[in-house]
Amino acid sequence: MKADLLIANGRVVTTRGFSQGPQLGSRLGEVEELSPGYVLISDGRILLVTGSFAEARSLSGSDTREIDARGRLVMPGYVDCHTHLSFAGWRENEFAMRLAGVPYLEILAAGGGILNTVRRTRAATEAELLDNTLAALDAMLLCGTTTVEAKSGYGLTTADELKQLRVLKEARCRHPLDVVPTFMGAHALPPEYSGNRAGYVRLVIEEMLPRVAEEGLAEFCDVFCEDKAFTLDESRAILSAGHGYKLGLRLHADEITPLGGAKLAAELGAVSAEHLIHASRAHLELMAKSGTVAVLLPATAFLLRSEKKAPVKDMLELGVPVAVATDFNPGTSPLVNMQLLQTFACIHYGLTPRQAFAASTINAAHALRRGATIGSLEAGKQADVLVLAAPSLEFIPYHLGVNLVHTVIKGGQIVVTKGALSYGEGGKTQTDPL
Amino acid sequence: MKADLLIANGRVVTTRGFSQGPQLGSRLGEVEELSPGYVLISDGRILLVTGSFAEARSLSGSDTREIDARGRLVMPGYVDCHTHLSFAGWRENEFAMRLAGVPYLEILAAGGGILNTVRRTRAATEAELLDNTLAALDAMLLCGTTTVEAKSGYGLTTADELKQLRVLKEARCRHPLDVVPTFMGAHALPPEYSGNRAGYVRLVIEEMLPRVAEEGLAEFCDVFCEDKAFTLDESRAILSAGHGYKLGLRLHADEITPLGGAKLAAELGAVSAEHLIHASRAHLELMAKSGTVAVLLPATAFLLRSEKKAPVKDMLELGVPVAVATDFNPGTSPLVNMQLLQTFACIHYGLTPRQAFAASTINAAHALRRGATIGSLEAGKQADVLVLAAPSLEFIPYHLGVNLVHTVIKGGQIVVTKGALSYGEGGKTQTDPL
Repeated sequence: MKADLLIANGRVVTTRGFSQGPQLGSRLGEVEELSPGYVLISDGRILLVTGSFAEARSLSGSDTREIDARGRLVMPGYVDCHTHLSFAGWRENEFAMRLAGVPYLEILAAGGGILNTVRRTRAATEAELLDNTLAALDAMLLCGTTTVEAKSGYGLTTADELKQLRVLKEARCRHPLDVVPTFMGAHALPPEYSGNRAGYVRLVIEEMLPRVAEEGLAEFCDVFCEDKAFTLDESRAILSAGHGYKLGLRLHADEITPLGGAKLAAELGAVSAEHLIHASRAHLELMAKSGTVAVLLPATAFLLRSEKKAPVKDMLELGVPVAVATDFNPGTSPLVNMQLLQTFACIHYGLTPRQAFAASTINAAHALRRGATIGSLEAGKQADVLVLAAPSLEFIPYHLGVNLVHTVIKGGQIVVTKGALSYGEGGKTQTDPL
Repeated sequence: MKADLLIANGRVVTTRGFSQGPQLGSRLGEVEELSPGYVLISDGRILLVTGSFAEARSLSGSDTREIDARGRLVMPGYVDCHTHLSFAGWRENEFAMRLAGVPYLEILAAGGGILNTVRRTRAATEAELLDNTLAALDAMLLCGTTTVEAKSGYGLTTADELKQLRVLKEARCRHPLDVVPTFMGAHALPPEYSGNRAGYVRLVIEEMLPRVAEEGLAEFCDVFCEDKAFTLDESRAILSAGHGYKLGLRLHADEITPLGGAKLAAELGAVSAEHLIHASRAHLELMAKSGTVAVLLPATAFLLRSEKKAPVKDMLELGVPVAVATDFNPGTSPLVNMQLLQTFACIHYGLTPRQAFAASTINAAHALRRGATIGSLEAGKQADVLVLAAPSLEFIPYHLGVNLVHTVIKGGQIVVTKGALSYGEGGKTQTDPL
C-alpha cells in the first residue's frame, strides 16, 4: 500500500505505546522524537511514522502528495477534552466587573453568571447557535485542535438542552473538527426551579436524559457538583441515571469547595473528574484506583485569579491520569487556543512542556475514551496531524501569544494551510472570532 | 481640507486630553467612547475624530478611501515601551529547565541566561540580526503594535553594541513600525570583564556612549540595576554620562531585589523605571514627584512565576504614571502580542481593562516622550490606528489567545488588512514568527 500523503523532514514528536492507557505518574511527558521524521498517511489513517528516508520513499508513489515540513514540529492534533462550546453571548462585562472588585453576588444580581448565558442561549435560534459554534470550531482548528468535547448546560429546559445538543450534532456534520457531545443538564439550577431542586433533578433524570439517549445526542453525562450547583447526592442520582443510558460519566468536581466530587467520580467509575482544585489526597487515591482522568483547567484557574491550585504533584505521585483542557466558555475561560493553554499548564500548574503536551494529546484522548484512535502519531491511528512553525515541543508554551500553526491535517485531509482555513466555505477567520 | 482616509462606523475608544502628561492615579483608565465613531485621516495625521456622520461626510471627498469598521473597535495603535528586540537565538530550553526545577545558577553554569544570548548575538551577522528583527516587527505589527522601544545589551562589546543599534536603525528604515532605540551596554557584565567591573563601566562610559552618541544611534540610555548586574553607583555613573550625551534615561529597577533603583531613577529625573516588583512606597513617592513613568512588565512576572507582584495600588494611589509593556526578549518574555499583554496586566497585576488600555497607549507613549504625537486618537496626532474584531475594549483582555487585529493603519497607511501584512514584500508571516 502506498501513502496518499507524506509529511517529510519534520521534527516529529509524539507519545508511543500509550494507546491502551494514559501516561501515569512520573511517565507523564515521555515523548519520542524523530528528526528528521516522516509521517505517511493513507485513507485517513497513519500508515507509518519513521525516521528513515528510504522507508518513507518505499511507501510513497507518484500519487503521494508531499508536505515538506522543513524541520518544523510535527505532532498529533490537540484534543480539547473540556469545553462549553455552544452558547450565545460573551460576558466580557463580568470579566471587567471582577477586576473592578465587584463581589460575585452583585454580579449575579446584575444578571451575570451562568444564568446570563442560559438566558441568551435560550433566546437564540438553532441557526444562531450553529453560527457561533462553527466560528468557534474554526478558531480552534486554526489553533490546532482536531477533537473537542462539548457540553450542553446553557439550556436547562428539555427543549433548550436538546437544541444545544442538536446544534453540536449539526456542527459535527458540517465541520472537519470532531465534536464529542456531553449532556450537562445539571450545570445550574434554572431560576424557574429555584424553590424546587428535587423537581429539576427529576426533570433531568426523567425527561431530559431519556430524550437525549433516544436521539443519540450525547456520549457523556456531566454534572456541576458544587455548593452553588448540585449536591453529592443529586450528582450521584443524575450520573447513575446517565450510566443507565450507557453514557460515559464526567464530573465538575471540587472546583470551589471540597465537596467530595473526586470521591464520587471514583466511586461511579467516571471517565473523568474536572477542575479538582480542592480535591483531597485521599480522594485522589480513589481516582487513581478507578483510573478516573483528572482534567485540569489551568486557564480558568488563572483567569479567576484563584490563589489555590489543583494538587498536581499529588496526582502525579499517586498515579492519577492527568489531562488539561481549555474549559472554553463565555464566563470564566474564553480561550480556544490549546497552544496558549500549554503556557498556562506550565506556568500556572507547574507541568513541564512535555507533560503539558502529553496531557493535551494522548491523555486528553483517554479522557474522551479515544486513546486507541487519536492523541498520538502511531500506525493505524486517525491521521490528525499538526505542522507547527516551532523548532521544538518546548517552543510552544515558551513562545506564547502567536499562532504557530502552519498546517492542520484532519483525518488525512489538509484543512489548514499556512495558518489559514482551506476547506469548503470555511467560516469566519481567526480575526473575527465569533 | 479633505481626508484621504475615513474609518467609518467604528466603536472608537481613546483617551483624550492627556497629550501633555500621562493619566495619573484614579484617572488611569479614563477612556472615551464614540459609537458610531468616525476617524478622518489626512497626510498621515488624524484630521478629526467625531461621532457625527454629517461632520465626517463634510470632510470626505471623492478621493477619500473608506474603511467600514462595521461596529468593530477602533483604537490607537499599541505602544510597546520596553523590549529587547534585536537578538539571535531563542532560549526555550531554559524555560523547560526552570519548570523542571533546575536552579538558576545551574542554568547559568550550563551556558544559559543573558550571556547565552550575548554569545549568539555576537556571533550573528548584521544581516542575520536584521532578519530576526524584521520578523519580530512583523509579528508585532500583525498584533497591533505601531511603536516599539528596543534596547541593545546583547553585544557588550563596543562593536557588538553598535551592531545591534545599527540593525535597529536599518529596521526602522525598512519597516513601517516605529522603533525607538535605547543603548543598554550595561545589561550584564560580560565574561571577559568578570574580574574587572570598573573596567567595563569605563568602557561603557568612555568608549561605547561617545560612539553611540556620535552616530546618533540611540534616544535613551538604560541600565540593569540589580544585585547580579550593576550597582546603584555604577548605574548612576553610566546614566549621568548618558544624560551628558542628551540621551533620555531609563532604568531596570528593583526587579529581583530592593536595591533602590526606583529612588535613583527619580533622583536622576529618568523618563522611566521598569519592573519595580520590590520598589518601596517611599521610593515610589519620589518617582511620583519626578514624574518618572513606572513601566510594568506583567508577562515577565507571570512567566518567571514570581510570587511577589509590583505594588500597583501604591503607584496609582501616589500618582506614579503607570505604563505596561511586553519586555519581549528570548529569556524571560518571548511575547510580542500586546493584546495578550492586556490579559496579564489585568489578571496578574490587577489593572482593569481600561487601565491596561491607557497604560499600553497614552501612558506608554509618555514613557517614550511621545505623548504629544502618538498614543491616542486626537486631531493632529500621527494616524496610528487599529481596527479590532472586538465589540468592546473589555473584550481584548477577556478574549485571550486569538489575534483580534483586523486592520492596522500606520502613519495613515494601511499596513495590515484582515490580519495579514499588506506592505511591500512584508517578511515572514505570523505563522513563522522568527
